[in-house]
Amino acid sequence: MNTVTLIGSCGALLTTLAFLPQAVKTIRSKHTKDLSLALLVIQSMGNAVWFVYGLLRTDIPVLTANLFTLILVVTILGYKIRYK
Amino acid sequence: MNTVTLIGSCGALLTTLAFLPQAVKTIRSKHTKDLSLALLVIQSMGNAVWFVYGLLRTDIPVLTANLFTLILVVTILGYKIRYK
Repeated sequence: MNTVTLIGSCGALLTTLAFLPQAVKTIRSKHTKDLSLALLVIQSMGNAVWFVYGLLRTDIPVLTANLFTLILVVTILGYKIRYK
Repeated sequence: MNTVTLIGSCGALLTTLAFLPQAVKTIRSKHTKDLSLALLVIQSMGNAVWFVYGLLRTDIPVLTANLFTLILVVTILGYKIRYK
């Protein structure tokens, strides 16, 4: 793996993991007032579309990363709808 | 542009725009309690790394999309630090 690919992989790992602490915080506190509903809706739509793109191109990293983030964002969205 | 590329572009547009409504909400309300600091830190690191990746590959869409999201996420992070 060359340096540029390694940098891209780091970026992918970071943006994939970013929603994990938000999911943990939201599940624990059940407080979602300051979270934008539109962020969660648009982000989950984006991850779903990226997932389809990964499927169509049989691109396992794109597919896996976006499925993982999608699960996290949809979970937070569920809390946002339930505990608004 | 074929269908697969079009789907990828839709995904990129959605995940790029997702933080815009959150930035608007946070700037208006100045309330950041329910936002995870770690989400904002990891997401901005991720966008910065993707931006560098875009620079190194002279990939204008990757570079532009991540610079745009980075500005939004760093703005929200600034509010999170100032109004915690």
